[in-house]
Amino acid sequence: MSGAMRKSAPFRVLLDMDCVLADFEGNYLKCFREKFPNEPFVPLADRRHFYISDDYKKFEEQSPDILSKARSVYETPGFFGSQPPIEGALAAAKEISGLTNVEVFLCTSPLTKTPGVHHDIMEKLEWTEKHLGMDWVKRVIITKDKTMVHGNILIDDRPKIKGVLKPLPFKHILFTASHNRHLDLRATTAAERLDNWTDGSWQTLVEKYMKLM
Amino acid sequence: MSGAMRKSAPFRVLLDMDCVLADFEGNYLKCFREKFPNEPFVPLADRRHFYISDDYKKFEEQSPDILSKARSVYETPGFFGSQPPIEGALAAAKEISGLTNVEVFLCTSPLTKTPGVHHDIMEKLEWTEKHLGMDWVKRVIITKDKTMVHGNILIDDRPKIKGVLKPLPFKHILFTASHNRHLDLRATTAAERLDNWTDGSWQTLVEKYMKLM
Ligand SMILES: [Mg+2]
Ligand SMILES: [Mg+2]
Repeated sequence: MSGAMRKSAPFRVLLDMDCVLADFEGNYLKCFREKFPNEPFVPLADRRHFYISDDYKKFEEQSPDILSKARSVYETPGFFGSQPPIEGALAAAKEISGLTNVEVFLCTSPLTKTPGVHHDIMEKLEWTEKHLGMDWVKRVIITKDKTMVHGNILIDDRPKIKGVLKPLPFKHILFTASHNRHLDLRATTAAERLDNWTDGSWQTLVEKYMKLM
Repeated sequence: MSGAMRKSAPFRVLLDMDCVLADFEGNYLKCFREKFPNEPFVPLADRRHFYISDDYKKFEEQSPDILSKARSVYETPGFFGSQPPIEGALAAAKEISGLTNVEVFLCTSPLTKTPGVHHDIMEKLEWTEKHLGMDWVKRVIITKDKTMVHGNILIDDRPKIKGVLKPLPFKHILFTASHNRHLDLRATTAAERLDNWTDGSWQTLVEKYMKLM
């Protein structure tokens, strides 16, 4: 049997951007405090919900427009483009994409709440070009419904991945973030956690799922 | 057996945007002639290649910078946002999405050739919001590699759909456009053609593939 003649489909790794490659949480808190120095804020250690607004609700009595202020931070042009990369993330992404018969895609959702606010997506492509290069712009998949993407694994900080395809067509790996640190995995759609890009555990994890599929 | 208890995955229709929902070809020629009234141009009846540049190459001797001029037309901010909808396309998209157990997604590729040019994607979301509403922004999937999307059918004017998944994970329906009108289907990846959104043939086509899958 000549294996060289027939290649199987590559193993496809989907990497979420916010909170997986880009430090959304740290950047959000910094920008919020700069923009609203006199407002109450949620330190990273107190984050509990995926949506920022769910954590800022508790301030509504003392600061009635806190939710629109909280939203304005990430809806302001420049926010998504200015996020610092998470430590080790870009090096890991490049290493994974260098593995034999592996393809990496960046899989990110657009803002869809406020009419007219669509610059976030442009900034995510600019961010990708700046930090990873034009070749990686071709690897970005922007979709609200990630179940529509043919990945083998999705590394994402969102606790519950939902969409039109059920069950999930990929293994969800929960990337640990300040907002999901407290969660039991049974309260998520994830098979396991990845805590960081620095201690080498991502290599074991990727190898494991490559063998399983 | 209680069928109501268990719903199968919805039938997923992927609609390309340029030349399927939005009149790229007509808008391109109009904008080119307005911007470069003294340059030679390719009328719609003479379009032969998917990439505009492949059809404008023939003018390079008489107009040495014709290719960068040709590219500048669609790289200029405002081009993608200003495309008129193709006749009947938006009504058909809404009708398809209203069918039982059917989900429609708009599946479009970003420009990836010129560093710094990423506004096209923002304009495509603005276009979607303007012509179809915010709910449809959630149905846009932006990806250079459409084989990564879990569709059942993809209606696209591009003759050859390529990506990391081979064979194509969906049926490709070639939407007829001035640049592909002359092609034999055997020179494409498509199973069949859809010529327009106005004569009702899309209904027969969608029903046929819904039954097949
Ligand atoms: Mg995220
Ligand atoms: Mg097209």
